[in-house]
Amino acid sequence: EVKGHVRDLTVKDVRFPTSVEQLGSDAMHTDPDYSAAYVVLETDCNLRGFGLTFTLGKGTEIVVCAVKALAGLVVGKCLREIVSDFRGFYRLLSSDSQMRWLGPEKGVIHLATAAVLNAVWDLWARAEGKPLWKLLVDMDPKQIVSCIDFRYITDALTEEEALGEIGPIVCGSSSEHQMLMEGYPAYTTSCAWIGYSDQLLQQLCTDALRSGWTKFKVKVGADLEDDVRRCRLIRETIGPNNTMMIDANQRWDVAEAIEWVSRLAEFKPLWIEEPTSPDDILGHATISKALAPYGIGVATGEQCHNRVMFKQFLQAAALQFVQIDACRLGSVNENLAVLLMAHKFKVPVCPHAGGVGLCELMQHLILFDYICVSVSLSNRMCEFVDHLHEHFTSPVVIQNACYMPPKDPGYSCEMFESSVRRHQFPDGDVWRLDMKK
Amino acid sequence: EVKGHVRDLTVKDVRFPTSVEQLGSDAMHTDPDYSAAYVVLETDCNLRGFGLTFTLGKGTEIVVCAVKALAGLVVGKCLREIVSDFRGFYRLLSSDSQMRWLGPEKGVIHLATAAVLNAVWDLWARAEGKPLWKLLVDMDPKQIVSCIDFRYITDALTEEEALGEIGPIVCGSSSEHQMLMEGYPAYTTSCAWIGYSDQLLQQLCTDALRSGWTKFKVKVGADLEDDVRRCRLIRETIGPNNTMMIDANQRWDVAEAIEWVSRLAEFKPLWIEEPTSPDDILGHATISKALAPYGIGVATGEQCHNRVMFKQFLQAAALQFVQIDACRLGSVNENLAVLLMAHKFKVPVCPHAGGVGLCELMQHLILFDYICVSVSLSNRMCEFVDHLHEHFTSPVVIQNACYMPPKDPGYSCEMFESSVRRHQFPDGDVWRLDMKK
Repeated sequence: EVKGHVRDLTVKDVRFPTSVEQLGSDAMHTDPDYSAAYVVLETDCNLRGFGLTFTLGKGTEIVVCAVKALAGLVVGKCLREIVSDFRGFYRLLSSDSQMRWLGPEKGVIHLATAAVLNAVWDLWARAEGKPLWKLLVDMDPKQIVSCIDFRYITDALTEEEALGEIGPIVCGSSSEHQMLMEGYPAYTTSCAWIGYSDQLLQQLCTDALRSGWTKFKVKVGADLEDDVRRCRLIRETIGPNNTMMIDANQRWDVAEAIEWVSRLAEFKPLWIEEPTSPDDILGHATISKALAPYGIGVATGEQCHNRVMFKQFLQAAALQFVQIDACRLGSVNENLAVLLMAHKFKVPVCPHAGGVGLCELMQHLILFDYICVSVSLSNRMCEFVDHLHEHFTSPVVIQNACYMPPKDPGYSCEMFESSVRRHQFPDGDVWRLDMKK
Repeated sequence: EVKGHVRDLTVKDVRFPTSVEQLGSDAMHTDPDYSAAYVVLETDCNLRGFGLTFTLGKGTEIVVCAVKALAGLVVGKCLREIVSDFRGFYRLLSSDSQMRWLGPEKGVIHLATAAVLNAVWDLWARAEGKPLWKLLVDMDPKQIVSCIDFRYITDALTEEEALGEIGPIVCGSSSEHQMLMEGYPAYTTSCAWIGYSDQLLQQLCTDALRSGWTKFKVKVGADLEDDVRRCRLIRETIGPNNTMMIDANQRWDVAEAIEWVSRLAEFKPLWIEEPTSPDDILGHATISKALAPYGIGVATGEQCHNRVMFKQFLQAAALQFVQIDACRLGSVNENLAVLLMAHKFKVPVCPHAGGVGLCELMQHLILFDYICVSVSLSNRMCEFVDHLHEHFTSPVVIQNACYMPPKDPGYSCEMFESSVRRHQFPDGDVWRLDMKK
């Protein structure tokens, strides 16, 4: 049923001026303009695939340039051949003998790889007429595993072990039914960006509680006294039985992280997210150990650049919550590797989302994780941020603070053409008409 | 004495068709075209600064694009202000609140940062009328340390400790004199690229021995039986008292690395270089432990992407030889951090060089390391590869298999304008006239 050749790949620099309202502001990213390198694949059988990688504004043109460098590896290929050896195709893109020097599998070139592969997965799901999560759920476990490049992770998870981490298909049906009825639980980051006033925090939390939200993330790390005040305010507003997480966005060194978070322990955060450099596995392990007595876990991953890093975070017990990212890792292929490793190490996956398009993409992966891998909601939830969804043709549906499984075929990251046109940088109306700072 | 503003930054995509002769071929990079994103800074006082970052051909245009994105942070700045707060300037480039998402401090954006900062260091050394190594040697240790961003490494090395790792100035003079007379010992990688025939290997080793070379690196990892034959041939050719190192360029997983290298232990390599993923700190630690009984150390670093990674490699005893790179790390600033950490952890630094321009750059850093930090040649040597030097206005001088300290002001990576013009991609003569494969 899967047919057609990729005839063309186009990529666009699409930017949203979110910094104007301090949306998305945190201790390290004070003025993000949520953006994407947005990829469209055209086939010779009237089917298109849409993919993106998320960026923060400046530099998106570099990722666009990298996507163009990868395009030659995709255009002309037959979709059936790609997906019948998806591991090989993943490696073709991630290990080109000249381009791998620019990574390997990290930074700009890997973000670009994610954008391209996200579009390929979208194309595949559309060709099958299924939402991506359902495509994965219906796959034979052997086929799932055949999409994963096990290079550099076999000391933690072999192909044979990976097969064992995927629940038997029969197991799928009841958990799938549950998801279709109830959805996957989400937490909100929309209430407490670092640029928000106390009054706004309180109001947004109160509103969110009324809408059924029970889990709240608070940005910290710029100023300790501010953090104490904000965390107290939010804990008072949400009460003792709801969940609060804090997020420092890499602001601290190791010792500073431990000291600072200890001061916030009285507000009972479930986790401290990104306490230090995303590269510092051993540092995170030290922080995890020091904060365990407070009952505070360490969460990280949105800037964890590949499966080799996640492998080590797991091996070193350096995190208690795995935050995969749909655009930082090499698309579905590499995320599958991390989901299966996390399951083997018994660490819950709580994905990073937000930005632009990340919620749309991520819901698919976490649904697969629940239905076929973890089959547990214990200490599990998916981030949700409530903006920019209106630009997508199949936006996320949140009901009672849960992601409801998408039904449209594909990977949910097609944007309206008018949105793309208006926000293209630097020539779209939004940027030309001086909304630019 | 240091004056002037940066008036302009230009960057060019310069590629050398080295793959035609299999120069530089290894188990993972089978057909490299040694290339560079080449940066020229112009000032308003008639001084220019030259910098580059090394690449393997395809994708160099992405790094060029990234350099252009950084240019706005440099152009217009006053050189004196940059160097009087070089730590701040390093952080300005490496932690821009929108662009850091593309790294942070890794991959394309960090390679671009290196190219720009290498040009700034060149400019500074020229403004002082000194070769870069001498600029560093003559600096007050406090000023050296003020160039380093200690963010994320204070759990391994604080600013105060760093000062203690730099030898007192008086100590400098005798070691400096020694370097001026004898030079810094080098090893050669030019004899045993993976694409070379046995006959060529043997001939090149024999020739090199005659020219005074005593340390030889051999590329391995594509085929075990080939490796056994090649290593035997080279050990027989160079004899038992010369030094052999082997380099797998990331070809293996952890268990495979241990098994494969054990099979080559009889040829007494000093080190196995890049046995697995450059990101795999814990994997390298496992390999180090397993190979220690054979007397084989682990070397890595040419793709170790920043000081946070090197910190962990040292903390985990995951390497026995630190291979810094002048273009992968954030220029002199970040290399200084790694030199000082390596010294604290008592691990010798044996830099990566070769490619195009890396030897020219690296000699400065390792001379500083010897004169002011390590003051030891025990288990220490700098890589040398004998090609493409003819394109530089101040090429390296090798005498008796040692790097002789450069005397011209600057960082030695200015290329002849004619070389740049001829090799510019895709419009230079070399590429237009169908020498392209």
